Amino acid sequence: MKTAIIGASGYSGEELVRILSTHPDVTLAAVTSRSLAGQKVADVMPALRHKVGELEFTASDPAELAASSEIDVFFLALPHGVASEFADPLYQAGKTVIDLSADFRLGSTRIYEEYYGQPHPAPHLLEAAQYVVPELADEKWKSTSLIACPGCYPTSIQIALAPLLKAGLVSPKGIVINSCSAVSGAGRKVAEDFIFCERNESMKAYALPTHRHVPEIEEQLEKAAFADCIVQFSPHLAPMSRGIVTTIVAKAKTGIEQLYATWDKAYADKPFVAVLPSGTFPDTKNVKGTNRADIAAVYDPRTDNFVISSVIDNLVKGASGQAVQIMNLKFGFEETAGLL
Amino acid sequence: MKTAIIGASGYSGEELVRILSTHPDVTLAAVTSRSLAGQKVADVMPALRHKVGELEFTASDPAELAASSEIDVFFLALPHGVASEFADPLYQAGKTVIDLSADFRLGSTRIYEEYYGQPHPAPHLLEAAQYVVPELADEKWKSTSLIACPGCYPTSIQIALAPLLKAGLVSPKGIVINSCSAVSGAGRKVAEDFIFCERNESMKAYALPTHRHVPEIEEQLEKAAFADCIVQFSPHLAPMSRGIVTTIVAKAKTGIEQLYATWDKAYADKPFVAVLPSGTFPDTKNVKGTNRADIAAVYDPRTDNFVISSVIDNLVKGASGQAVQIMNLKFGFEETAGLL
Amino acid sequence: MKTAIIGASGYSGEELVRILSTHPDVTLAAVTSRSLAGQKVADVMPALRHKVGELEFTASDPAELAASSEIDVFFLALPHGVASEFADPLYQAGKTVIDLSADFRLGSTRIYEEYYGQPHPAPHLLEAAQYVVPELADEKWKSTSLIACPGCYPTSIQIALAPLLKAGLVSPKGIVINSCSAVSGAGRKVAEDFIFCERNESMKAYALPTHRHVPEIEEQLEKAAFADCIVQFSPHLAPMSRGIVTTIVAKAKTGIEQLYATWDKAYADKPFVAVLPSGTFPDTKNVKGTNRADIAAVYDPRTDNFVISSVIDNLVKGASGQAVQIMNLKFGFEETAGLL
Amino acid sequence: MKTAIIGASGYSGEELVRILSTHPDVTLAAVTSRSLAGQKVADVMPALRHKVGELEFTASDPAELAASSEIDVFFLALPHGVASEFADPLYQAGKTVIDLSADFRLGSTRIYEEYYGQPHPAPHLLEAAQYVVPELADEKWKSTSLIACPGCYPTSIQIALAPLLKAGLVSPKGIVINSCSAVSGAGRKVAEDFIFCERNESMKAYALPTHRHVPEIEEQLEKAAFADCIVQFSPHLAPMSRGIVTTIVAKAKTGIEQLYATWDKAYADKPFVAVLPSGTFPDTKNVKGTNRADIAAVYDPRTDNFVISSVIDNLVKGASGQAVQIMNLKFGFEETAGLL
Repeated sequence: MKTAIIGASGYSGEELVRILSTHPDVTLAAVTSRSLAGQKVADVMPALRHKVGELEFTASDPAELAASSEIDVFFLALPHGVASEFADPLYQAGKTVIDLSADFRLGSTRIYEEYYGQPHPAPHLLEAAQYVVPELADEKWKSTSLIACPGCYPTSIQIALAPLLKAGLVSPKGIVINSCSAVSGAGRKVAEDFIFCERNESMKAYALPTHRHVPEIEEQLEKAAFADCIVQFSPHLAPMSRGIVTTIVAKAKTGIEQLYATWDKAYADKPFVAVLPSGTFPDTKNVKGTNRADIAAVYDPRTDNFVISSVIDNLVKGASGQAVQIMNLKFGFEETAGLL
Repeated sequence: MKTAIIGASGYSGEELVRILSTHPDVTLAAVTSRSLAGQKVADVMPALRHKVGELEFTASDPAELAASSEIDVFFLALPHGVASEFADPLYQAGKTVIDLSADFRLGSTRIYEEYYGQPHPAPHLLEAAQYVVPELADEKWKSTSLIACPGCYPTSIQIALAPLLKAGLVSPKGIVINSCSAVSGAGRKVAEDFIFCERNESMKAYALPTHRHVPEIEEQLEKAAFADCIVQFSPHLAPMSRGIVTTIVAKAKTGIEQLYATWDKAYADKPFVAVLPSGTFPDTKNVKGTNRADIAAVYDPRTDNFVISSVIDNLVKGASGQAVQIMNLKFGFEETAGLL
Repeated sequence: MKTAIIGASGYSGEELVRILSTHPDVTLAAVTSRSLAGQKVADVMPALRHKVGELEFTASDPAELAASSEIDVFFLALPHGVASEFADPLYQAGKTVIDLSADFRLGSTRIYEEYYGQPHPAPHLLEAAQYVVPELADEKWKSTSLIACPGCYPTSIQIALAPLLKAGLVSPKGIVINSCSAVSGAGRKVAEDFIFCERNESMKAYALPTHRHVPEIEEQLEKAAFADCIVQFSPHLAPMSRGIVTTIVAKAKTGIEQLYATWDKAYADKPFVAVLPSGTFPDTKNVKGTNRADIAAVYDPRTDNFVISSVIDNLVKGASGQAVQIMNLKFGFEETAGLL
Repeated sequence: MKTAIIGASGYSGEELVRILSTHPDVTLAAVTSRSLAGQKVADVMPALRHKVGELEFTASDPAELAASSEIDVFFLALPHGVASEFADPLYQAGKTVIDLSADFRLGSTRIYEEYYGQPHPAPHLLEAAQYVVPELADEKWKSTSLIACPGCYPTSIQIALAPLLKAGLVSPKGIVINSCSAVSGAGRKVAEDFIFCERNESMKAYALPTHRHVPEIEEQLEKAAFADCIVQFSPHLAPMSRGIVTTIVAKAKTGIEQLYATWDKAYADKPFVAVLPSGTFPDTKNVKGTNRADIAAVYDPRTDNFVISSVIDNLVKGASGQAVQIMNLKFGFEETAGLL
């Protein structure tokens, strides 16, 4: 099976190149980038030199790509809005589209416009599109060929919270979430706020109180809870290259043993979620470069809250690794293929 | 006026040496450290070489220090428990004692024992001791000569929250606080968890759900609120040398303008608190090396919460700088002397 | 084939666990550590959780290990001196021993004693032992079963210099070498000088002028040059977790094209050395987590020197990766097995 | 006395604002920046909020500034080429100009053009201009009012080497210099190569073999040595915000005691140079935020070389601090005024 990466110049795109170029079951047949077209991948991403051979970045024309008879699966690592320009013709041409942008994450075009500042670029595709956290989604998603990959923050949150909300073990009301993200969460963004000396030895909250991931978080948690779920989400920038640590405060409706029993059951056969003992604290360094989420929780009798901790690598489980995991599951490959 | 630092080998002690050795109104007459006795300060702390001249670390005998007729003010940068061994004789001898440990921060010996795992070492001094955040404390504290300096996390929290609770602008119920601290918050602790490669590129929550600063935070917030105040406090370790960013979620009982009006009034003439506009985000890098707290807040109409952000340098405003600020105010020096 | 790691608690040992636990051709049958005996590997090294199953650290008795009929290859990740206590009985029992310590790197017991401060622990094994940089060593090494893995600095230096000295393209006299190493070069050393706040935002030279790697560097370069080769080697500590950048100044005896032609020939079919164009600068980030060395050079007509730049990951090509590469070659596995 | 900073938006400019806004003997009367004109300094540089009051960035017209009767001293923190556009009219108008750019550092217009790619912008001023490392320059410099501040690398090198060359203690031939610089050495440069994730966990050499500072280094060392002095200089980028460590290899023409005697004499009464004992290693963290250079050296009998180590803060002693030190000396203020 042949795969292509559209928009391969960012950090998520680079991570996709890394994973797909050594994947045992697929071939990386094309990588596109407007800005890098004509250059060798090995020259632009020297760390991948030994994996990519003579592969070159090409310019990318949606119609042309759609007409290609060669490639089966397209990973879109593009900005929101732009992603739809490719998703539409590729999906119409019968290709499998795994989109890492926000274009198909939200069910509501109104909310998309509110948070992304422009009308939804492809509302006619929303019904076909399927939002997939592989550990949580209903098996039926595998029949669709337009898949929205979750955002990094929402992934770290849902893996911890969704099974608990579904089982009614925490209240959907009053949930407070704090996340700290590595700088790569902003992508390969060349702006003064992201140069080394501005981010080194620096921590700050940002985008309070309504970061763009809020509606995605709430929509998915509401689906799990079968109830309204308005969260207070506070993201922070941390001086590191990779990783997200998320800390969730939620009102307990049961004991900690029940919480762990539910997690253990939900993730018993899931290779990419590790449930750590209560009283230990997940550390981003332990998931760096992996597709794994580590989660743990404690109960505070003083407040009757659970305090839940979750860590992922924002570029792997929070983006490219999860996208490949989705491909693996959809096409019947080993779930961990290319991801260990 | 002559000052001494007892236990000067840690990061807070070193910061005190830095500040007091160039303070315009006092002399640094003695620095003690059991482990470093006999060595020159300039050799152990080469960064301070040009400020400390020939000063040497000495061994420290509480009784002897108390008998010294020379020194007026003692800064204790010692572990809890040990601090009392010095505070007691020095206070009895009429010296001014500014203690950076936890020994005199809590009103209750029972809670001290619960959180610090040992009986309170000097319960007879608790009545005399005064807990002082200079911007918040009642003027009467200046008459005492045994002063408890606040912890780093509690300082970052109280400066933001205390005026709001006092004015009834936020609910004392259900407050959720997340803090991210630099590694120096653990002091100069030589342990595997604190070596460079374990903390670099790493973030994690720790000490959930009841870090030792929780009772201090709650006791002080309750005094401000005249009401019970049980908080959910989640501290994190961040890969940097200095700084704390604290994010507070509290139920609003008024509008954001009123919150800002209250802050503006509380801090109008306070040189070490900067109230930043709503929608800007305090950054630890901007307070690094300073005795300042930067605070800002937003209102979230979706949740009816205020989300409040506060940053300090944990070693300065969170420890040594605040201790010197306390001395300045008690003895009538310029509040900013030695601190700009 | 079954392998064991003796002394698996350090960073090199951990990296060996990472590599061997997913190696396609061998099984990791035992990992030993005095301090961790009885604990599960998955608990101590949570990042490796999904690779090591139920494997436990065991205590390690050299005689017992030598008597084991199961294990064929032993990797020694032990301090110098201690390594010999295992190497001796294991080698005598006919096992293959791949030693990452300094015990068998030097040909001279006198120089060993001078640099390591103790008599050589196993001089009778020196004749049997073979020092191996796989890209440079004569094929004959494969017949020995006691192999000394090179040090990290010497690896970064020899890969760049040895082919040039062998071909007579640079003068063996007056070579000046500067290296900057990540903090993990010191291993998992718990000492005040290695805690986060001491190493962050800090660079310094150390061990001048005769770091322990000097005699290893010189012995190997002399073998390549068939001439005396006294180098000036200055190592530095850099605030990062992994990587070494080495900059070599050597008097040119030919032009830059000839230098590149010689490198190109030496490394044409070597998967783990990348020869970068003159005028580009190898960056440690591009080899992080890989077993690759990146090298490049420029000629300075003003000084008639070549200035050569070389980077490796000190824990992979500088230690554990190279050790596995050696095993691969000795036993006829794919050279890159387990290392991509 | 009133001072102005022209081009205050970069890191050196910001550091100048920091120092001059609390200098006891001068007033900071104006700060200019094309891009920031009209904004308050306190808003753009929040870390300096409490020092700069209501000061605003203004646009800067050279002729207008020259006509101002108010300001006596102008610090130029501008790119090379642009600096001359201001230096010329200001100098002609009788102002004191302290230029941090490269425009007046080199004696030869030919070499300027070779290294900076454009004709020298103000050759008629070269005779008037004086290059000043305050610890090394002849007293006569104080009579000029157009002063070239040294580059950061050259400062770290000259402080270590110039007295030794002058005294004939090292050979001027065959000197090899390696430096590692913090990222701020590139200024506030917004480019992909300088964003956090590209520089974090990364070290590389760059600009080999002839960085722009090479002719400045050589011209000054030749003046000290009264002999030709062609050096091999290799700069590196290190993942930190501030600091330069320089390691110099030079052929010894005397013993280490004589070297130290010469240093001790040269720097006996110099507040900003600390001569550390042979066998200790200067660390950038110890000079961070200070105007000090720390230097030390060892002798290697194997090679007959001195290996000399020197550290500075590139933004302070390597730029803005030294500029203020120059002003202090020229105008008879305390040498350390504003710099402790």
